[in-house]
Amino acid sequence: MPAFPHFTALARSLPPTVPFVGPETQERTRGAEFNARLGANENGFGPAPSVIETITRKAQLCWRYADPENHDLRIALGKYLGLAPERVVVGEGIDGLLGLIVRLIVEPGTPVVTSLGAYPTFNFHVAGFGGRLVAVPYRDDHEDLDALLDIVRRENAPLVYLSNPDNPMGTWHSGDAVTAFARALPETTMLVLDEAYGETAPASALPAIAALADMPNVLRFRTFSKAYGLAGQRVGYVFGDEDSVAMFHRVRNHFGVNRLGQAAALAALRDRDWLSHVLAEVSSSRDRIAAIANGHGFKPIASATNFVTVDCGRDATYAKAILDGLISRGVFIRMPGVAPLNRCIRISTGPAPEIALFEAALAEIVEKQG
Amino acid sequence: MPAFPHFTALARSLPPTVPFVGPETQERTRGAEFNARLGANENGFGPAPSVIETITRKAQLCWRYADPENHDLRIALGKYLGLAPERVVVGEGIDGLLGLIVRLIVEPGTPVVTSLGAYPTFNFHVAGFGGRLVAVPYRDDHEDLDALLDIVRRENAPLVYLSNPDNPMGTWHSGDAVTAFARALPETTMLVLDEAYGETAPASALPAIAALADMPNVLRFRTFSKAYGLAGQRVGYVFGDEDSVAMFHRVRNHFGVNRLGQAAALAALRDRDWLSHVLAEVSSSRDRIAAIANGHGFKPIASATNFVTVDCGRDATYAKAILDGLISRGVFIRMPGVAPLNRCIRISTGPAPEIALFEAALAEIVEKQG
Repeated sequence: MPAFPHFTALARSLPPTVPFVGPETQERTRGAEFNARLGANENGFGPAPSVIETITRKAQLCWRYADPENHDLRIALGKYLGLAPERVVVGEGIDGLLGLIVRLIVEPGTPVVTSLGAYPTFNFHVAGFGGRLVAVPYRDDHEDLDALLDIVRRENAPLVYLSNPDNPMGTWHSGDAVTAFARALPETTMLVLDEAYGETAPASALPAIAALADMPNVLRFRTFSKAYGLAGQRVGYVFGDEDSVAMFHRVRNHFGVNRLGQAAALAALRDRDWLSHVLAEVSSSRDRIAAIANGHGFKPIASATNFVTVDCGRDATYAKAILDGLISRGVFIRMPGVAPLNRCIRISTGPAPEIALFEAALAEIVEKQG
Repeated sequence: MPAFPHFTALARSLPPTVPFVGPETQERTRGAEFNARLGANENGFGPAPSVIETITRKAQLCWRYADPENHDLRIALGKYLGLAPERVVVGEGIDGLLGLIVRLIVEPGTPVVTSLGAYPTFNFHVAGFGGRLVAVPYRDDHEDLDALLDIVRRENAPLVYLSNPDNPMGTWHSGDAVTAFARALPETTMLVLDEAYGETAPASALPAIAALADMPNVLRFRTFSKAYGLAGQRVGYVFGDEDSVAMFHRVRNHFGVNRLGQAAALAALRDRDWLSHVLAEVSSSRDRIAAIANGHGFKPIASATNFVTVDCGRDATYAKAILDGLISRGVFIRMPGVAPLNRCIRISTGPAPEIALFEAALAEIVEKQG
C-alpha cells in the first residue's frame, strides 16, 4: 500500500497488473532478442515507404506540438469514410480511446458486457473506472452475439464490447449480423465496435458505414496499428454519431497524439497501393501459417485478421508448452488467456523468413513434446 | 445534449471547451500560416541533430509497438536523476500524466488547490474528474506559496498544483522555498510539482532531487517538450516516492508512449552539448525579448523559462489588442487568461529571425495604438 493516504478507494483497490507484457520485457528476461516477432499482431511487412519518407522529412519539426484538433487527419478520414469530420475523433491508439469511452459511461458498479477472453485492455479500463465486467463465453470460437444481447438486456448494461473481426481468435461475423446485433441493442446500451482488424477482413465482414451511421449508441474504433503498420506511432480513431463522438473532446488529452504519428497516419491513409500490397502479404502469410499448423495435425482457425489462431488439439497446458518452446527458441507469439480459448496459440502474420523460424521451431517442439 | 442517455452525469455536465486552441486552428481561421511561432513555449531552436538522426534511423521500425515499460528511458532518467528507475514513470507528456494523478486522487467534490491563472490543462483534468478547484491569486506575479499553504489547510485538500518555474508568468521561487513549502504541507496533501521549465531555470530554483525524495506526497513532473525540443513527440515523466509512482501503472495507457518518442527522448537526454547550446540560445533570446519590451516602455518580467511575459502597463483590453495585432501580423503569441495577469503578453523565445518579426510587428502596433 502506498504511504500517501489520499489516493481514491478505487485507485487503491486496483491490482498492479498490466494488460500485456511487452516482448521487450521477455527479451530482457531471456537476455536475448527475439528472432521472430509474431506475437503482438504488428505488421512486420512494415509501413509504406511513403510513410517512412514522410516521417523522415517531418522529423525536423518535431519541436512543434501537434495540432490538437487532428484536423487534417480527421478531414481525410471523414472523406475516406464518407462522414463529416465532426463524426471522427483521433486518439492515442484504440487503447487510449477505449479508456475514454469507458470513462464517459462507467462509474463504480456499472455493468459492462464483453466476451470471456476478449481484449484485456478494455477490461483493464473497465476495472480502472470501477465497472463490473460481465463476460460471456465464446461459442465455437466466435463472440456469441445472441448471448451478448441476452446479457446486455438482463444486466441493463450501458456498455458492450464487440470486436469484429475478433481478437484473439481471428473469427468474424458478417456485417449483416453485426448490424442486426447493433439494431437489437437497447438504445440505452453503447456498442463499442472494435474494428482494429477491419482492413484485413473480407468486405462482407464489415457493416457498411451507412448501416450504423444513424445510431447514437454505436461507436466504431479503428487503428493505424495493424494493416497500416504504425503500431509504434499510436494513432487510432473513433467514428459514429456526432454528439456521441463530441463527448470525447470533453475528456481527451487534446495534445496527446504525436505530430509524426498524425503525419504518418495521413500518409498511410493515402497510400492505397501499399495497403493492397500488405493485405496480399497478410493473406499469403495466413495461408502459410495454416499450412504449417495443418502439417502437425493442428487446426488453424479461419481468420479475418493479420494473425492465425491455431487449435493445438489438447488442453491449455499443452498449448502453453508449445508457446514456451517457441519463446525459448526466439519466436515471440502469444496465446489466448482463458479457457477454452487457451487450447490455442496465436501467430501473427509476418515476413516469410520469420514464419520459417516459427515453422522450424514448432517442428522441434512437436517432436520433443510427442 | 447527446442522444445517447447513459453518459455519466459528470461527463454530461462538462463543458465542451478545450484547454488551449492550437496555432493551427488560428492559421486555418486566418487563412495563412504564422511567420513566427512564439506562442506555445515550444523550442524553435529545435531538437538536437543527434535526435533527428535517431528518429530518421528508427522510423523503419515504427510498425512495432513501443516497450510498454519505457524501460530504457526510465533507466536513463533514473541514472540522470540519481534515483532507482522504479521511481520514474513515463507518459504521454506532462498533460497525460497530470490527467492520471488527478484521476488517482480526485473524486466528485474533492477540493484541489492551484493558482488563479496557472496551467489550464491541470484545471481541465480536475474538472473532468469532478474536482472542486480552489484557485489562489498570484502575488506580485508569483505563485503565492503562503496563501497556497493556507488554502490547502483550510480546504483539507488532498491535491495542490505548483509550477516552478511558473507558467504563464515565467517567475520562480528558490529551490529552498519550494522545499519548505513541500515540507510544510500536510502529509495528506499531494504536491504536483510541475517542473516543465526546470532546465531553463537557474540551478538554485530547483530543489535538489534528494531534498524531496523521501516524501510520498511529492511528485515532480518534467518533460521533453521544452528545453529538449520534443513537444511533438509527447514524452513526459514523473519521479518521486516509489509507491506513489507505482500508482500510475494501475491506470496508465501502457502502450501510450510512441516508439519514436521513446527513442528521441533517450537521444535527447544523452546530448548534453545540444542542451547547453539551447540553454544559451534561450537565455540570449530572453534578453532580446526583454530589450524589445523595454524599448516600448513595457516591463518584461524576469523569467526562468523559455518565454518572457511582458507587462504592457495597462489593462487586459490593451494587452489583448497588442496580442490581436501580433496575430493579425502573423506572429503567434499567447497571453495569460485571467486578471491581473492578463495585463501581460507572453512571448516564447525563438530564433532571431522570428524575434525580429515580433519586434517589427510590435513597433507597428504600439505606434498605431498610441
